[in-house]
Amino acid sequence: MSDDDTTQIRTLITTWADAVHRGDLDGVLADHAEDIVMFDVPPPHDGIRGLPAYRATWPPFFEWQAKGASFEIESLDITAGADVAYAHALLRCGTPEELAERPTLRLRLTLGLLKEGGRWVVAHEHHSFPHD
Amino acid sequence: MSDDDTTQIRTLITTWADAVHRGDLDGVLADHAEDIVMFDVPPPHDGIRGLPAYRATWPPFFEWQAKGASFEIESLDITAGADVAYAHALLRCGTPEELAERPTLRLRLTLGLLKEGGRWVVAHEHHSFPHD
Repeated sequence: MSDDDTTQIRTLITTWADAVHRGDLDGVLADHAEDIVMFDVPPPHDGIRGLPAYRATWPPFFEWQAKGASFEIESLDITAGADVAYAHALLRCGTPEELAERPTLRLRLTLGLLKEGGRWVVAHEHHSFPHD
Repeated sequence: MSDDDTTQIRTLITTWADAVHRGDLDGVLADHAEDIVMFDVPPPHDGIRGLPAYRATWPPFFEWQAKGASFEIESLDITAGADVAYAHALLRCGTPEELAERPTLRLRLTLGLLKEGGRWVVAHEHHSFPHD
């Protein structure tokens, strides 16, 4: 486990989250594997498979986010090996009204990463809210 | 990445899921790290932290499961490095009535694993249902 890998992954994830918040689709896709599997907040139940399907999930999210919603990492924990890593994070993700009404609301995010040709890429994402 | 590690992790996860389905608490905890972080289906939003808190989540689940619910792995995908791994899975998890009413309903599960002293342990779990 190297500090350098952890730093690279932290930069990758915070850069990705900034791109999400800016609605920058190219930035969101920049460090993602072709065969990514995403478990998203909305259905389908069996996941989003492949980069084109992953790409297609973002424009509707950006439309919702344009209502003034946040997408802000609150905590991020990374476990990096030589060539496989995972990370889990909590994010403030909601409109100001939603977060005022439910101040503890957090998006939970888990990422699986691989080192391919010396470069980390995200190969799995799991986004969820708890069921109250 | 070794086939042997992938096989060990597959056995660990299927053995754990069998223990969950039997309501065998010792079996559920057998291969888990002391500092596990779990994002569970119910709140709290910021996760369950540490083995005692993880342990406490299971008796209420077993009580619900005793109504005849399934907890059955349908697909399992493992990415293992030398000392860090992650896995994602889809599970049939519901009562027969729930699964009859919503046949595509799946529990999505992501696991983060570490090799400690030559032995794989689960250090992170993320369980969720999509929000319809």
